[in-house]
Amino acid sequence: MWQNEKYESVPLDVKGFDEDHSKGHGDSEYPQHEPSNTQKTDEAPRHSNQWPYFQDGKRRIDYVLTYHVQKPESTHKQSSHSCMRSFCCRCKKAKASAQEDPELAAQEERLDYHDDDQRLRREEFEENLHLMGLQMEKDEGNKIPGVGFLKIHAPWEVLCREAEFMKLKMPTVKKYQVRTGNDIVEKIHKFMHKVTTPLRPKVGINGTENEKHLSYPFSREKQHLFDLSDRNSFFDSKTRNSIVYEILKRTKCTRAKYIMGISSLLGSGIYTAAYPLHDGDIDDPQAESNDRKLLYEEWASYSIFYKYQPIGLVRKYFGEKVGLYFAWLGVYTQMLIPAAIVGVIVFLYGCATVDDNIPSMEICDEKNNITMCPMCDRVCGYWKLTTACGTARASHLFDNAATVFFSIFMALWATMFMEHWKRRQMRLNYVWDLTGFEDSGGKQKSHPRAEYEFRVMKKSMRKEPAQKAVKDKLTCRDRMPAYMTIVIMMCFLIFVTLAIVFGVVLYRISIQTALLMSSTPSFRTNIRATVKTTAAVINLIIIIIMDEIYGAIARWLTVLEVPKTDKSFEERLIFKTFVLKFANAFTPIVYLAFFRGRLIGRPGKYIYVLGSYRMEECAHAGCLMELCIQLCITMLGKQLIQNNLFEIGLPKLKKLLRRRKMDKKQQEELNKTLQRHEKDHFLGPFVGLTPEYMEMIIQFGMVTLFVASFPLAPLFALLNNIIEIRLDAKKFVTELRRPIAVRAKDIGIWYNLLRGLSKVAVIVNAFVIAFTSDFIPRLVYQYMYSLDGTLHGFVDFTLSQFNVSHFQPGTEPINPMHLGYKVEFCRYKDFRDPPGSDTPYDFSKQFWAILAARLAFVIIFQNVVMLMSDFVDWLIPDIPKDISTQIHKERNLIVELFMKEEQGKKFRNTLSDPSPQQLRSRPSSQA
Amino acid sequence: MWQNEKYESVPLDVKGFDEDHSKGHGDSEYPQHEPSNTQKTDEAPRHSNQWPYFQDGKRRIDYVLTYHVQKPESTHKQSSHSCMRSFCCRCKKAKASAQEDPELAAQEERLDYHDDDQRLRREEFEENLHLMGLQMEKDEGNKIPGVGFLKIHAPWEVLCREAEFMKLKMPTVKKYQVRTGNDIVEKIHKFMHKVTTPLRPKVGINGTENEKHLSYPFSREKQHLFDLSDRNSFFDSKTRNSIVYEILKRTKCTRAKYIMGISSLLGSGIYTAAYPLHDGDIDDPQAESNDRKLLYEEWASYSIFYKYQPIGLVRKYFGEKVGLYFAWLGVYTQMLIPAAIVGVIVFLYGCATVDDNIPSMEICDEKNNITMCPMCDRVCGYWKLTTACGTARASHLFDNAATVFFSIFMALWATMFMEHWKRRQMRLNYVWDLTGFEDSGGKQKSHPRAEYEFRVMKKSMRKEPAQKAVKDKLTCRDRMPAYMTIVIMMCFLIFVTLAIVFGVVLYRISIQTALLMSSTPSFRTNIRATVKTTAAVINLIIIIIMDEIYGAIARWLTVLEVPKTDKSFEERLIFKTFVLKFANAFTPIVYLAFFRGRLIGRPGKYIYVLGSYRMEECAHAGCLMELCIQLCITMLGKQLIQNNLFEIGLPKLKKLLRRRKMDKKQQEELNKTLQRHEKDHFLGPFVGLTPEYMEMIIQFGMVTLFVASFPLAPLFALLNNIIEIRLDAKKFVTELRRPIAVRAKDIGIWYNLLRGLSKVAVIVNAFVIAFTSDFIPRLVYQYMYSLDGTLHGFVDFTLSQFNVSHFQPGTEPINPMHLGYKVEFCRYKDFRDPPGSDTPYDFSKQFWAILAARLAFVIIFQNVVMLMSDFVDWLIPDIPKDISTQIHKERNLIVELFMKEEQGKKFRNTLSDPSPQQLRSRPSSQA
Repeated sequence: MWQNEKYESVPLDVKGFDEDHSKGHGDSEYPQHEPSNTQKTDEAPRHSNQWPYFQDGKRRIDYVLTYHVQKPESTHKQSSHSCMRSFCCRCKKAKASAQEDPELAAQEERLDYHDDDQRLRREEFEENLHLMGLQMEKDEGNKIPGVGFLKIHAPWEVLCREAEFMKLKMPTVKKYQVRTGNDIVEKIHKFMHKVTTPLRPKVGINGTENEKHLSYPFSREKQHLFDLSDRNSFFDSKTRNSIVYEILKRTKCTRAKYIMGISSLLGSGIYTAAYPLHDGDIDDPQAESNDRKLLYEEWASYSIFYKYQPIGLVRKYFGEKVGLYFAWLGVYTQMLIPAAIVGVIVFLYGCATVDDNIPSMEICDEKNNITMCPMCDRVCGYWKLTTACGTARASHLFDNAATVFFSIFMALWATMFMEHWKRRQMRLNYVWDLTGFEDSGGKQKSHPRAEYEFRVMKKSMRKEPAQKAVKDKLTCRDRMPAYMTIVIMMCFLIFVTLAIVFGVVLYRISIQTALLMSSTPSFRTNIRATVKTTAAVINLIIIIIMDEIYGAIARWLTVLEVPKTDKSFEERLIFKTFVLKFANAFTPIVYLAFFRGRLIGRPGKYIYVLGSYRMEECAHAGCLMELCIQLCITMLGKQLIQNNLFEIGLPKLKKLLRRRKMDKKQQEELNKTLQRHEKDHFLGPFVGLTPEYMEMIIQFGMVTLFVASFPLAPLFALLNNIIEIRLDAKKFVTELRRPIAVRAKDIGIWYNLLRGLSKVAVIVNAFVIAFTSDFIPRLVYQYMYSLDGTLHGFVDFTLSQFNVSHFQPGTEPINPMHLGYKVEFCRYKDFRDPPGSDTPYDFSKQFWAILAARLAFVIIFQNVVMLMSDFVDWLIPDIPKDISTQIHKERNLIVELFMKEEQGKKFRNTLSDPSPQQLRSRPSSQA
Repeated sequence: MWQNEKYESVPLDVKGFDEDHSKGHGDSEYPQHEPSNTQKTDEAPRHSNQWPYFQDGKRRIDYVLTYHVQKPESTHKQSSHSCMRSFCCRCKKAKASAQEDPELAAQEERLDYHDDDQRLRREEFEENLHLMGLQMEKDEGNKIPGVGFLKIHAPWEVLCREAEFMKLKMPTVKKYQVRTGNDIVEKIHKFMHKVTTPLRPKVGINGTENEKHLSYPFSREKQHLFDLSDRNSFFDSKTRNSIVYEILKRTKCTRAKYIMGISSLLGSGIYTAAYPLHDGDIDDPQAESNDRKLLYEEWASYSIFYKYQPIGLVRKYFGEKVGLYFAWLGVYTQMLIPAAIVGVIVFLYGCATVDDNIPSMEICDEKNNITMCPMCDRVCGYWKLTTACGTARASHLFDNAATVFFSIFMALWATMFMEHWKRRQMRLNYVWDLTGFEDSGGKQKSHPRAEYEFRVMKKSMRKEPAQKAVKDKLTCRDRMPAYMTIVIMMCFLIFVTLAIVFGVVLYRISIQTALLMSSTPSFRTNIRATVKTTAAVINLIIIIIMDEIYGAIARWLTVLEVPKTDKSFEERLIFKTFVLKFANAFTPIVYLAFFRGRLIGRPGKYIYVLGSYRMEECAHAGCLMELCIQLCITMLGKQLIQNNLFEIGLPKLKKLLRRRKMDKKQQEELNKTLQRHEKDHFLGPFVGLTPEYMEMIIQFGMVTLFVASFPLAPLFALLNNIIEIRLDAKKFVTELRRPIAVRAKDIGIWYNLLRGLSKVAVIVNAFVIAFTSDFIPRLVYQYMYSLDGTLHGFVDFTLSQFNVSHFQPGTEPINPMHLGYKVEFCRYKDFRDPPGSDTPYDFSKQFWAILAARLAFVIIFQNVVMLMSDFVDWLIPDIPKDISTQIHKERNLIVELFMKEEQGKKFRNTLSDPSPQQLRSRPSSQA
């Protein structure tokens, strides 16, 4: 959410700052704000070395803002202030400070305008924060030169107030029994629990699963409902952070002509960073156990890759949004297991039946003396079909009846996955007490981004003053240039993608032709494989490079667009990135699957590109094999390179470089003396979950879209994801600053993208089976043309005849006697009328019949699978039954609780005639 | 929520009642419960003749329960009681009453067991109601013999308490400005408002549209937020009713072995009816204006059919659920206007181009001397194609390029409609303050129905006592018989539907053949039209009859199934009814569209049914014409008969019959003396909105599913709906008891059904255009076979040749010289190879090419339209922009309100150092 990366720097020399130009430094003169007595008693620190505290060792640091300090002022080491100045007295104080320390004042005077203005704004902001009840402490440039820290603490009253506003559901004192169902279900559940015990991470959360605290939106008026005995731990660190962040968001800085919230302040560099603190160290063996360390040990480790993730703990530490991402990733990975198994079985089925496959047997059979037309003009000779034996056999691995089954299976799998996730999400919502909580998006939605406000301001400054009263906004006309740029740029980029694919095709054609022309015969057999593989690798490299470029361009375009809110920024960015990355990853594959080999013309009337290059043909057994190779290389390569190189390698390299700067000992020394907020300062900022999700979505596309041609895709995806989970976990626990806990009920736009993909997958798979594979022609042959109902004669059926005398002049082979005999008719793979018919070389009746069959298959496949998916969707309830029972039970318990309270109240208050019945009906409500 | 109608009568002779068998009548001895003083002041009646009140004229009647009274006890006329007896003292009191009035006691003794038990249960229930704070008054058998009334009043405290529990959003004192957008939008809005003023109903609600009360869930702790100056009108009658109903649902009668709620009590006849009261009379001209009268004048009248509906008032009077139904019906009707207009234009386009249509010109052209093969065996002779001229011309009306456009239009229209409705619903949710309100379904879901509980009880009684502790439920095994019955029954019914269609087909074939054989030649030309029309009428009559039968069977099957909750009962009933009614309405149409004329074989090899009947052929120009006639008759007939006869005619008839029993004067007399609750007693009970919705859904199916063949369908639907709205309105206002106001955010399952239908419509229309119409063959001919790119020669292209010598022996025409010349080759409509080719009478290349084109069209049409629909769906935001702005604004205002309050509180309470800044920032919070 409030990610506010890449803000355009707000121009600070806008008019209106001139007047307020004060010189005073004035930070160090603020009286230290003493915490009131009540706070002292409330917040006695329990583990003073575990959590980070203020200088007084009592108030916990809930949030840190950093800012730029001009130079390390060693004299002002660790000066703590609470900012309580009002603007009216700033000038006075500034003067006062100048009088106190003339040298400092002189230094200050040299500070430029900009810097001073920044400080003033900070001061105003901090004042406003103080008004909201937050307590602050400053820590300027002690160990880390040039960086000032503003540590923020939220006292108990503020926490309570905000929790009430945010309608945070907190556990009440009342517990209730969670029943999974009837006896048998319960037993199975227990048994499963026992079996999976070694797979469970050792975190304390799973302990008392049978009891759950009834939770209720926190309200100070109903404090008696909650267990407030330990005020320090009632709100956990995640909640405290998000409460402080909520206040930060709401607080505005009104000094400038336009109102600035925290994100504008961050964007314009007035504050450089804002982050909550991690719970503690991970690598300190003496350190007390904390959630971060527990996560490091029980989650972010490759050695426990086979275990479930401690999602509850992840959520407790990072908040719901991050928790949901990892839960989703976990569900996806888990669901990949059956898909991978079935995929491997399908592949093995292909391997096992390769010798029984009649068409490939016929191709390999030397007795079927089939002479094929030359593969290129002039230099290539006629060739015998038996030489394609190897490819034909290999093709069968991916092109058999099991493939059709597998694509139906995967379409249903995708639906099952979505359903399973919906249920899991619902369960998590219940366990995490989010059931009553309304969309988190609502509020965030309408906080305009700083850039947007800046643009609006610029626009309104251009206007007449009379019009200023009306609240401005960017109209379509204002945005037209940006929109035009985006449309043009997107079209251009997609054109680039297409051009690249075409370039690779040309590369393949030209290299192949060149090799065919020059090479010795012994070389030729390997030509295809070489060209194919190099082309695929080139494709891969281009994809990976363009991926990064497109990512950057998409961001740039979105910045150009100036969306109003963070949410719309994110959505637009995701949309653009998705379109570009998707086009990038899938264009070569789509070309291979649907266009390659379709546009070649026929012998005697080939289609040429760039003068004399004939378009690519597919191998005799269809393009499926090549599609498969391409997919395999893209998937494996992309995952290996992107994961290992970018995600593991680069950070390691960076660390190494950083380490080289200072020797190890010094570093360790520093590490020990550094405080929590300083340590966290060195970690990378959290940039949102978009890249993680995007990577997974593209992978999901690979797994589902062309699964008909590559049944091993789920296996590869599974292997990758097992690493991916722990990799991401490591990154979150060790390498990034702690993200702000964001409440979320679902994974938002990503769910829709997944849904969309799984819908598209059905159609794509239908087309792959119908058009790319030979499944339909085989079926048609078997049931319409075969004499004995088998595939014998299928190869002959698929080959049309060509009279070599019909070659266009200059394209006939130079060496017609290449095979040792004179060729009169050569064969080519197509369904065309023979040379002797009324309509020579026209598409034959078979062609149209097969086309009709292919199309009919597409219609049937698409609609049947969609119907089945909808049926599965309808069959599986979105809310698991036990959860809906529990939710209902919880609701009843709350009504009961209040009815009791109600009756208690009624009794205590005036009651005209307390009849005995009424007394009876009030059991122990006065307790 | 906790509703549970239609209980199976609960056996009252269960053990456990024997001991409690008391004889006393005891009703009249109860002390009248005096309303407390506070209530008296609170609820001073303002218009005592407007609303119905208790005997004291002060407490308003919010709800009425009726029950059976053995005989009219005229001596006890109008005895008012509040039931405050406890069970322990019942026997004593019964005895006391016996002592007081020995005659009465003797009478009582004659009362049977059953009756007595019922009274005891009622007493317990009423006691429990009293404990909940409700006040009651009894009115037994005064004017209406045999019926006792229990009038219920909810005092202010109860209303407040329940409103808090139900989280009812009530308007606060704070108002805010509703801004529609910027200036231009505002102006347009105002202009539109002005233009549509005559279309608006004259109800006071639309007055101050620019201001809205901020609403907030009612809470007694925040009473100061609400305007409680007039306690009588703070909760309107609808809210009061639903609050009382809420309490009734929650209250249980625990005397029997199983707990009974109000619905079980109703189901077992302990109470005979439960209804809230209407606001007042409609036909009394002197009566003060009330909402009901206003509705009658400004809504339930045919004379204002062109006006908008006063939806706000409908909701205010009937509650959200009914309001949503009428809003939906309104939106649907409104959306039908453009569809009807476009449909008429498409039809007119067909009319206008009928003379330019080349194929029909060719058919009508006498010069094209085409001899067709005979239409039946032996008796029919060869015929000339020119005789089919009229049909061909008529076919063009419905089978032209505009039809394709229209079906795409209608698919998008359906999407637009759904989107428009979603937005409207959202807007209504906002205006009706339902935005925060969670699903009402949640609670309803889990209240088991009485029948279910009864079944469970029966089951648990069969069990060992040891097992009784476990809460029973019906397992799959218990339900297996019911499920089996349902499956078998449903299959059987669908089979019946198919059989009926087949029967009608046979009727058509046999009659046609009979007529062809017997009739004089002059007769023959009219044969087709006669047979077609009679068959369609027969079909219609069967559909209407079966509709009623299927409705009854679906209900019976659902009762058999014993669903657990009312919600699931409703859903299962809807599902079954939908499947059956849908199959019933659409099977004949589907047969006509897709099967008729496909299974006829070819000359010389016809397919025969039942011995010697050849299957039906279509007219030369395709079956579209016949499909159109069928649709037209079904739609018009169904609407006319069902609406006018069943919905208008029958109630009128009933009324007439009822009136005949007593003469008019007497009736008027009675009408004047009757009190509100007695008048309402004579009205029909409200049976839910399911039949209304179902009727509309079937109509929606007619409009969208086969719209490709019948562009006038939207017009017919529009005309019907204009009547339907007012008809339903009249029914709700005048003929039914007031329904209990149910909160609902959406129209529930109906939305999904609509969505499903509009999806199916895309596919069905694709198939109708591709296969039923001649659109694709024309296109293929024009672009692949035509010599000059026009349709000239198309008729010849569609006709295959048949060598008459190839007729099977015994099927050739008796009179081969019928046309006056010897026929060697006759033509028939199909794409088959000519007799002279290698494969005579096999499907030709053209056949396969056209088939491929048809299938390709289906794929393209389906996917393009689906994509466009999804795009439209995505393009139009679900929440109107102004509404989302308003919602956000409202939320901000609430936070602001509370922050102010908060700061006010903080100031009043302890505050360690009130700095001047803090004082400044608190504007008038103490006021």
